[in-house]
Amino acid sequence: MNFSKKQLAHIVFESNDRASRTFDAVVLIMILGSVSVVILDSVSELHLKFGNTFYFLEWVFTILFTIEYALRIWLTTKTFRYATSFYGIVDLLAILPGYLGIFVANTHLLTVVRALRLLRVIRVLKLGRYISEADFIKGALKASAAKIQIFLFSVLTIVLIMGTLMFIIEGPEAGFTSIPVAMYWGIVTLTTVGFGDITPQTPLGQFIASLIMLLGYAIIAVPTGIVTSEMSKRSQTKIIENTRSCTFCGKDGIEPEDNYCKNCGEKFG
Amino acid sequence: MNFSKKQLAHIVFESNDRASRTFDAVVLIMILGSVSVVILDSVSELHLKFGNTFYFLEWVFTILFTIEYALRIWLTTKTFRYATSFYGIVDLLAILPGYLGIFVANTHLLTVVRALRLLRVIRVLKLGRYISEADFIKGALKASAAKIQIFLFSVLTIVLIMGTLMFIIEGPEAGFTSIPVAMYWGIVTLTTVGFGDITPQTPLGQFIASLIMLLGYAIIAVPTGIVTSEMSKRSQTKIIENTRSCTFCGKDGIEPEDNYCKNCGEKFG
Amino acid sequence: MNFSKKQLAHIVFESNDRASRTFDAVVLIMILGSVSVVILDSVSELHLKFGNTFYFLEWVFTILFTIEYALRIWLTTKTFRYATSFYGIVDLLAILPGYLGIFVANTHLLTVVRALRLLRVIRVLKLGRYISEADFIKGALKASAAKIQIFLFSVLTIVLIMGTLMFIIEGPEAGFTSIPVAMYWGIVTLTTVGFGDITPQTPLGQFIASLIMLLGYAIIAVPTGIVTSEMSKRSQTKIIENTRSCTFCGKDGIEPEDNYCKNCGEKFG
Amino acid sequence: MNFSKKQLAHIVFESNDRASRTFDAVVLIMILGSVSVVILDSVSELHLKFGNTFYFLEWVFTILFTIEYALRIWLTTKTFRYATSFYGIVDLLAILPGYLGIFVANTHLLTVVRALRLLRVIRVLKLGRYISEADFIKGALKASAAKIQIFLFSVLTIVLIMGTLMFIIEGPEAGFTSIPVAMYWGIVTLTTVGFGDITPQTPLGQFIASLIMLLGYAIIAVPTGIVTSEMSKRSQTKIIENTRSCTFCGKDGIEPEDNYCKNCGEKFG
Repeated sequence: MNFSKKQLAHIVFESNDRASRTFDAVVLIMILGSVSVVILDSVSELHLKFGNTFYFLEWVFTILFTIEYALRIWLTTKTFRYATSFYGIVDLLAILPGYLGIFVANTHLLTVVRALRLLRVIRVLKLGRYISEADFIKGALKASAAKIQIFLFSVLTIVLIMGTLMFIIEGPEAGFTSIPVAMYWGIVTLTTVGFGDITPQTPLGQFIASLIMLLGYAIIAVPTGIVTSEMSKRSQTKIIENTRSCTFCGKDGIEPEDNYCKNCGEKFG
Repeated sequence: MNFSKKQLAHIVFESNDRASRTFDAVVLIMILGSVSVVILDSVSELHLKFGNTFYFLEWVFTILFTIEYALRIWLTTKTFRYATSFYGIVDLLAILPGYLGIFVANTHLLTVVRALRLLRVIRVLKLGRYISEADFIKGALKASAAKIQIFLFSVLTIVLIMGTLMFIIEGPEAGFTSIPVAMYWGIVTLTTVGFGDITPQTPLGQFIASLIMLLGYAIIAVPTGIVTSEMSKRSQTKIIENTRSCTFCGKDGIEPEDNYCKNCGEKFG
Repeated sequence: MNFSKKQLAHIVFESNDRASRTFDAVVLIMILGSVSVVILDSVSELHLKFGNTFYFLEWVFTILFTIEYALRIWLTTKTFRYATSFYGIVDLLAILPGYLGIFVANTHLLTVVRALRLLRVIRVLKLGRYISEADFIKGALKASAAKIQIFLFSVLTIVLIMGTLMFIIEGPEAGFTSIPVAMYWGIVTLTTVGFGDITPQTPLGQFIASLIMLLGYAIIAVPTGIVTSEMSKRSQTKIIENTRSCTFCGKDGIEPEDNYCKNCGEKFG
Repeated sequence: MNFSKKQLAHIVFESNDRASRTFDAVVLIMILGSVSVVILDSVSELHLKFGNTFYFLEWVFTILFTIEYALRIWLTTKTFRYATSFYGIVDLLAILPGYLGIFVANTHLLTVVRALRLLRVIRVLKLGRYISEADFIKGALKASAAKIQIFLFSVLTIVLIMGTLMFIIEGPEAGFTSIPVAMYWGIVTLTTVGFGDITPQTPLGQFIASLIMLLGYAIIAVPTGIVTSEMSKRSQTKIIENTRSCTFCGKDGIEPEDNYCKNCGEKFG
């Protein structure tokens, strides 16, 4: 198999034909394999038994990712723009921990960076029908962002005031040792997670906790309402949009029953 | 009561007249009875007291289900297609554990297979008004499948990265013994289940846990939004799709029960 | 104050003028008072201190409710229909426990019946703007009933199969002592309640628990979607319904732009 | 920098130019700083180390807030109306605890009042695009208020009856020491928080708990449905309401940016 540089670039960066799909599949397996090694190596029993194998595999993946990264740097026409892009940095993070492991003693932080390799899957998945669906979700969340920020700010204000109240009412004996801890408990309660590591013991504390829970139960409707109404609007807009463009001025959004272009006044057949 | 093979097939496989409805009712009672026996037999006090009765009843149900299965095999015109269909396999699974119990020592796995008998209820319930309602739910979920896959993949990426972080910050002392365990905790927290068997102890761990909880509380809006907007679209389309046009003036939006065209006054058949 | 029987009946059963609103307010205070006594009497410290006062108050409320019940029986024109109606039975349940307490030793069950007095509040609240709002919620839930039944049946099937699996995988050591207990745990987990009294200990158990949690997190979208799409449809229908009735045949739902009645063909101005 | 009283009032109360935005930014930093001091001072280790610094900072913030409050009182044209308004009271609460701390021994209550300073952030955030978004959320919640009140009342009725039942079934051994405690447990369970500090131990108790959980899981759909359908209606109405009719042929649904009538081709100004 002999490829020109242009053909190789096509395989590595685009993904419509067979060769590039095969390349993507290999990269996908490498990513999942390397992440699995990180996960399994963290289990102490497995680390004791297969620690050396994991170490060897880690180097194999690091070298393979290095070759891939070098390939991308060489093939791209805009080296600097690729290297500083989100994908370029994620690709670099995939190989750095391997080499840093030689110099750095604290391998803990490197473990997190290694887990970040999973982010690379996003590029490979950027295929076919998933793009439009992911864009739909992203678009709805972006359009709801301002509303959700207000909601989160309100939640944090409630959590601070309720947390301070509970800190004073329950005190350290019940586990509410400080306002930050009481706020942590407030978030645990308001979001209906409810670990149970800290629980109110006094009747007054239980009463206020009940109020927080009912509040949390009711206001979960707010983010849901925001995102759902946004998504409903979007998916309905899509239906209406079997519109066409004006043949004269190119204005889009012309509905089938329109007689004249609403932009340039052109008369339609 | 003497039935021809064709009449019997009608009773066993279809369900519009009285005889087949009676047959379905008997099968339904058998299914619920046999599943109840499995459930009650698992309670050790009841097993000690009524173990023999349960064993006897299990054989009764196995024989009854065997007769039913034989009947279906005999009556169907497409034996192979039935035997390899979803319902055919579920029907076979209903009788296998009884006979396998003679040969197999590990009766634990058989218990699960026995519980699968409940799936047989689906066939019996495939009646009347429930079909269209179930199809409505299934349809909405199928149409949302791609979006939900993306959502679940995003959730797993978050869980992996957050789990790795918590494994490093909290460590084995707080119960985060490995990345898989930390990911399990991450799912427990993100889904707002919050068992409380593993909880963060350090301020930094509690801070990151708070972020995960708020995230989980906010992104529950996403699947809800996806399914709701899909269902809203469907239930609105249904209403609109039920109308026809006037045969005289072409006015649309005529509802089935209208006697006259609301636009031109034309009388309908 | 001298009232005729008809005037009294008006005060007791209807509620548009001042006198009947005063009557309703008195009954509301009696209900809340008697329920508060039941609640406070259950706190052992308060029972020790104020037990006699509570006992006395209980008798006061019983006698007052008896007078009210007698009044209703006497005033209603359809005594039997009232006595067997939902409200009639709730009214009777409000006075029975007091008298039964003399004969019955087990006062525990009577406590529950006493708490049922709160249901009487519903009648009193059946006023003003709340009726249409409550009807809106009830209507949406009724229309969603078939879909929610299917949903609950699916949830129970999942809980049975997952519960059986967890009972076999985790066993009695982790608290999964029987299939019913494992199903209880399954419901606790699927509904994201997560008490944490029973938690999986083995890696396989934790993996299956994670699946149940993600499932529960995702399928909460289903009832929400059902109810929301139903409510959206209803609240939108309301807007459209600024329609009028045909002046000839009385058919309602005539839209402003209709030229002819869609029922009788009458021509509109 | 010399400002007239009018210019100062403009800077303090309005916020369109640079000077007033700088003033708002300074106030925002002061608020967040003073709240941070309250939070950090509650952590006993930090209190031991930096207690004096926190005490000093508290006085700095109190004096700065006092100057700001005096400025507002002096600058406003309607002194009484400002002093009794929501913002006026919050501004006063921001300075009171500092001075009260000299006379009052119980500094606990003052801590809560100090945390209330965060409410002052609302005024500063009352800027730009957030206003309309916050109004959207507030509007939707206000319109849903009656429905949510009915919902909360139903939840409390369920909690009272279920709590009484569980108090009788489980009793004090399982932690259900009184009806109020059992109601607290009922709210913890119905809202899917699930602390796990109190859990049912008997099969019957676990069965009823399962019912409560399934109920809670299903009825969370109600507030979500109410708020979502309200928000959907609002965000759709917004779109529709932005259009006008053609002045020539009367065709409606003309969007503001259209140059020609899409029905008759009439040119718009």
